[in-house]
Amino acid sequence: MQNLNVGLIGGGFMGKAHSLAYAAMPMFFWPAPAMPVRKTIAEATDQLAAEAARRFGFEQSTSDWRSVVEDPEIDVVDIATPNHLHAEIAIAAAKAGKHIISEKPLARTSQEAKAMYEAVKEAGVVHAVAFNYRRTPAVALAKKYIEEGAIGRILNFRGTYLQDWSADPNSPLSWRFQKSIAGSGALGDIATHVIDMARYLVGDFSQVNSILSTWIPERPLQAGGADALGTVRGSDGPRGDVDVDDEVMTMIRFSNGAVGSIEATRNAYGRNNFITFEIHGSEGSIVFNYERRDELQVCFASDQGDRRGFRTIYTGPVHPYGAALWPIPALGIGYGETKIIEAHDFFTAIAEGGTVSPNFADGYQIALIDDAIVQSAESDAWVDVQPAEL
Amino acid sequence: MQNLNVGLIGGGFMGKAHSLAYAAMPMFFWPAPAMPVRKTIAEATDQLAAEAARRFGFEQSTSDWRSVVEDPEIDVVDIATPNHLHAEIAIAAAKAGKHIISEKPLARTSQEAKAMYEAVKEAGVVHAVAFNYRRTPAVALAKKYIEEGAIGRILNFRGTYLQDWSADPNSPLSWRFQKSIAGSGALGDIATHVIDMARYLVGDFSQVNSILSTWIPERPLQAGGADALGTVRGSDGPRGDVDVDDEVMTMIRFSNGAVGSIEATRNAYGRNNFITFEIHGSEGSIVFNYERRDELQVCFASDQGDRRGFRTIYTGPVHPYGAALWPIPALGIGYGETKIIEAHDFFTAIAEGGTVSPNFADGYQIALIDDAIVQSAESDAWVDVQPAEL
Amino acid sequence: MQNLNVGLIGGGFMGKAHSLAYAAMPMFFWPAPAMPVRKTIAEATDQLAAEAARRFGFEQSTSDWRSVVEDPEIDVVDIATPNHLHAEIAIAAAKAGKHIISEKPLARTSQEAKAMYEAVKEAGVVHAVAFNYRRTPAVALAKKYIEEGAIGRILNFRGTYLQDWSADPNSPLSWRFQKSIAGSGALGDIATHVIDMARYLVGDFSQVNSILSTWIPERPLQAGGADALGTVRGSDGPRGDVDVDDEVMTMIRFSNGAVGSIEATRNAYGRNNFITFEIHGSEGSIVFNYERRDELQVCFASDQGDRRGFRTIYTGPVHPYGAALWPIPALGIGYGETKIIEAHDFFTAIAEGGTVSPNFADGYQIALIDDAIVQSAESDAWVDVQPAEL
Amino acid sequence: MQNLNVGLIGGGFMGKAHSLAYAAMPMFFWPAPAMPVRKTIAEATDQLAAEAARRFGFEQSTSDWRSVVEDPEIDVVDIATPNHLHAEIAIAAAKAGKHIISEKPLARTSQEAKAMYEAVKEAGVVHAVAFNYRRTPAVALAKKYIEEGAIGRILNFRGTYLQDWSADPNSPLSWRFQKSIAGSGALGDIATHVIDMARYLVGDFSQVNSILSTWIPERPLQAGGADALGTVRGSDGPRGDVDVDDEVMTMIRFSNGAVGSIEATRNAYGRNNFITFEIHGSEGSIVFNYERRDELQVCFASDQGDRRGFRTIYTGPVHPYGAALWPIPALGIGYGETKIIEAHDFFTAIAEGGTVSPNFADGYQIALIDDAIVQSAESDAWVDVQPAEL
Repeated sequence: MQNLNVGLIGGGFMGKAHSLAYAAMPMFFWPAPAMPVRKTIAEATDQLAAEAARRFGFEQSTSDWRSVVEDPEIDVVDIATPNHLHAEIAIAAAKAGKHIISEKPLARTSQEAKAMYEAVKEAGVVHAVAFNYRRTPAVALAKKYIEEGAIGRILNFRGTYLQDWSADPNSPLSWRFQKSIAGSGALGDIATHVIDMARYLVGDFSQVNSILSTWIPERPLQAGGADALGTVRGSDGPRGDVDVDDEVMTMIRFSNGAVGSIEATRNAYGRNNFITFEIHGSEGSIVFNYERRDELQVCFASDQGDRRGFRTIYTGPVHPYGAALWPIPALGIGYGETKIIEAHDFFTAIAEGGTVSPNFADGYQIALIDDAIVQSAESDAWVDVQPAEL
Repeated sequence: MQNLNVGLIGGGFMGKAHSLAYAAMPMFFWPAPAMPVRKTIAEATDQLAAEAARRFGFEQSTSDWRSVVEDPEIDVVDIATPNHLHAEIAIAAAKAGKHIISEKPLARTSQEAKAMYEAVKEAGVVHAVAFNYRRTPAVALAKKYIEEGAIGRILNFRGTYLQDWSADPNSPLSWRFQKSIAGSGALGDIATHVIDMARYLVGDFSQVNSILSTWIPERPLQAGGADALGTVRGSDGPRGDVDVDDEVMTMIRFSNGAVGSIEATRNAYGRNNFITFEIHGSEGSIVFNYERRDELQVCFASDQGDRRGFRTIYTGPVHPYGAALWPIPALGIGYGETKIIEAHDFFTAIAEGGTVSPNFADGYQIALIDDAIVQSAESDAWVDVQPAEL
Repeated sequence: MQNLNVGLIGGGFMGKAHSLAYAAMPMFFWPAPAMPVRKTIAEATDQLAAEAARRFGFEQSTSDWRSVVEDPEIDVVDIATPNHLHAEIAIAAAKAGKHIISEKPLARTSQEAKAMYEAVKEAGVVHAVAFNYRRTPAVALAKKYIEEGAIGRILNFRGTYLQDWSADPNSPLSWRFQKSIAGSGALGDIATHVIDMARYLVGDFSQVNSILSTWIPERPLQAGGADALGTVRGSDGPRGDVDVDDEVMTMIRFSNGAVGSIEATRNAYGRNNFITFEIHGSEGSIVFNYERRDELQVCFASDQGDRRGFRTIYTGPVHPYGAALWPIPALGIGYGETKIIEAHDFFTAIAEGGTVSPNFADGYQIALIDDAIVQSAESDAWVDVQPAEL
Repeated sequence: MQNLNVGLIGGGFMGKAHSLAYAAMPMFFWPAPAMPVRKTIAEATDQLAAEAARRFGFEQSTSDWRSVVEDPEIDVVDIATPNHLHAEIAIAAAKAGKHIISEKPLARTSQEAKAMYEAVKEAGVVHAVAFNYRRTPAVALAKKYIEEGAIGRILNFRGTYLQDWSADPNSPLSWRFQKSIAGSGALGDIATHVIDMARYLVGDFSQVNSILSTWIPERPLQAGGADALGTVRGSDGPRGDVDVDDEVMTMIRFSNGAVGSIEATRNAYGRNNFITFEIHGSEGSIVFNYERRDELQVCFASDQGDRRGFRTIYTGPVHPYGAALWPIPALGIGYGETKIIEAHDFFTAIAEGGTVSPNFADGYQIALIDDAIVQSAESDAWVDVQPAEL
């Protein structure tokens, strides 16, 4: 079991989640595919970096992310920054021959994503993009059922990602509302998770037809650059323009003939991390809601008529990833577990010299889907999704 | 309290539901707006009609629906036939000066619907179309909250109507799969209920963008003309073509700036009468699921931050219609109650010389929305909804 | 199909529910076992009775219940009065040779219940007690599964009946809080429904061990005698003593070795008609909640390990009573349907010269269980349930 | 921020959970009360211990737990062994002046528990018992609501802990079915968690009245001593006697006048980690289900009548522990988080020289409650709970 040295860029919420994953992965998956060593963490200042190192268990720290990327001792670069830095860091890391995992969305634009993909392809390194929700055991179980043919041919897919943290017009103008940093709004931030699931479970997108809405056109300026997530209602003061979407709604035609729809908004009072999908097939249906993520609901047409209905499966040791997690279903799965599983799959690909999915090709394809969604919303028309040039 | 003689055309599932409503309405709403008298029922043959009269408590029966319409003793004509007969009966009844309630959808086409509307307008009679689900107390409560401003300005609407009774390719080719009788498939049969709710709760439709799908293109021919609902899986034999949609998916732009989506299918295994909507407003959210129709979920942004979440309201005596129903919430509401309330509102309009909603104007407008949905699906484009010529 | 003339004593909430059942039963169950004719209704005054007759569709009315019982044209006496009148009316009706259905609980005391049972046995008439909830299709389906052995040997039963209409200390001192009229509080009023279900699904009670609690010892006096159910919070004024229980909690030993518990209270804020049970067997489990009464949840141990979980069965045409009800599951079941089914089973027994369950023997046995519960609570000890002397 | 060296005894499921907690606690709670250093882990053999050290991130390992207890570098001893070793290890650790956290139940018997309590009291060390479920944020929120008086005076408590991993009669005779190792069955293993919650939320127990049942009296012998949790159905071979309970059911009288009931079983098909409680107070109700642990349901009597119902609160940054966890509710909480919080509270007590709850006094009191439950089941009578001699 080899050690692999990790350099983590970013010590915010995502830095925390990834650090947890590196510490815990071998505890859960044993023998581990490889042992992640928390080597170096980079943050904006030396002081922030030093504090992050102590907090997250890294051996050393720096305020210069380039030094991480260039450090010959580093095997893996983990990009947990705001979106506008993903491309620059990833391309530099690829050139330095590092394996790379980047937070989602892969980039602000499909051009950036394409360049990132080309860099990792050129470098021959392992690459991954952190659409972690598909690794929820219940989602992986949905995939297994579909692959086993348990619900037959897929007819349609209906997905949502609903949150409410930006519903208050007085929540601040964080970077997530600025196109120059985020690239897009709810589309890139949250809809991409559902797009990833739809591709994973149903298949390639052929066409989209979309509406983008910005419900709150200006928000209070922030003194610092802190993430707005925890901000309380009621601040006022000078305001700046929001130039990204608050909500995206799209219809989908899949290449295999299925149809679908996705809606994502961060303005849905009462919803928190309401990632849902419902899939109907010729032989059954599958329903998932991340807010109750230990559960998957599935209906099999083949069940005896007077005993047919949705079964609520609590994922556990006999389900995907379950044997590594907890000994009893419903003990249960949290956000951390999705990241631990993600780390496992990524390190497995490195250890075995393979690939992992979703990777930069997927992130690039999703960026092209995002492009099509934006273009559709602007043109009021169905738009063909361009295939990634792989 | 005047007596009003009812002539009911059709003794199937809907005839049963309406007969129940006439018998029970004064038991629930007392004093009743008027006393419905079950005078005459019409069915296909004398024998069927006689049996229906005894079963449903009518004084007399006939196999000639025209005799009902022309009977001077009849005050109210109730149309509970398959869709292709709605227009002819309604226009004849209007000419005879009868008040009319018709099952939904109002007609097979907007042309028929327009003619029906013009006939009742000309005749000056009270007219209603039986989109009963908006009368579920929980839906009426949603309307009340919205009118009180409890969720602020509406941003979006997401509705579904999912069933599974036609998911089996061996379920027979009933009239509901034949355009000449039904007009359309899931669109007219079930999506119209959700369209009615969306108009009721959000407002006028401006544009639609839609996909229609037919998943099962042929089905076994039926010996008789009986409704397919109860048919078991597994029949085979000669098959005929399905020329209507199995599923409709549409995006909506409302006139007031809100956006929305509706999906309806009768091929969703595990769903039975899954009529749902979720509405997000600037000050809260509302969620409804008819499969748990005693409940309405509502989230108020104004709730104290650490105590905010969806409230599950069980509708009861203090909610719309509740005082007339049962003394305790959750005793609870069934399909019959929606029809009893519908009868109450219809007879109130007659007794008071007023109007009721939804009426033929609404049914006509919904037919125009259906037209736009079909046209959008055929043209792959956003289509403006034509306003009814009232 | 014979006509059977019904004399109904009592025109309150229960009078309404029973009238609905008589009107609707043949509409649902066709051919009907017999045709109920709403002949005579009795209420406290001539005026109330006349109004009730018009409202509930009875041919005639009276303020003298004895005249109903003695009327040779009456075939069936339906007792829908407060509890203190059940015994006197039932015994008189039995002596007059009428078939009898009585609301629950059968009587205030086991002595009364015994006398009632002996009267109907002596008279040889058909008798029923209106524990209607066991006729909810989902409960009947639970019974069917158990009889088919689908959950194996029953290990335990856990039931509740929770309401909140008396949680407010300012809700008035209706007859339901007075032992002289009601016999007991939550015990007789609501716990008996769950006791009936436990006997129906699990079997005979052997021993009980119980706690009775009165949380609100005095309440505002009522001017009239009206039912308190709809009363709003906040009345004050002179108060009187409550001499019945607000809550009952009991453990149960069944004769077949299973164990169980039941809790019933009318002081549970947020619960409305929360009648639930969970049954675990050696081969599966069953869960029911009347607040979502269209559904039954069942888990089969024999399901493949990675696909095992509670199935949510929406009762419909293929389930008990379903073929007579509505053509699609979840259209759905309300309180009315439980009473319509109850009427069907009662009239079937009359038409076929058979018996129906639950009947006065069951009501008598449940009264003996209530006695044991009271005695246990008073003596702080396990108490043997006395078998009814049949 | 001081470092505190941890010696962990036991590298099974609980060793994993505790190791995770030590690694992650400062990542979540920052600044941390103290930095846990994973110093030494003890397992049955040198090889197992060495492997556990690598897997769980400990600096060194041993097969001799006494060497851990006696090591002067060790500050904290963590007991994650089967129950029969708790007392011996804890008493030795206390004598060596170590702070101690022990898995639950504290001991096999109240005598052992008392001796453990006396040892830590004598030593003046910080002590904790790992009833982690009370640290679920939703449970902590329930506590907060109760302390704020939001549901008024508590009337009753109804709790369950239902699992199904031992429902199969062919699941093996692990140590959890052997009194000499486990002390008791479902009572000590799982019911104690609910007893802890009941004490935490409602208060002291005064009396209990109980039934203990053993549904499967013998099980297949195990070759090894491995935990049975993951065992599949269907093994056969020689069998041994089960001498502990499969199920416990108890009624409770609390010292403050409230009443309650608890049921725990590991034979409830379809239930996994179904830890639930429902509490009714004079001003509201609270409902919790660990299988949906991100949520707490609460009903406030003071809500406006037409808007009153259970609110589903997803615990997040504004709720107990939430600010340290994840930035958005429902991201969400898993088993790991409960252990991370537990570690935080324990290390806070050490750092601040305070105490933590639940501690050995609580574990000792719960053992006395268990004694009363056993005695009640044996004597068929209410039994007074003896107060711990503190």
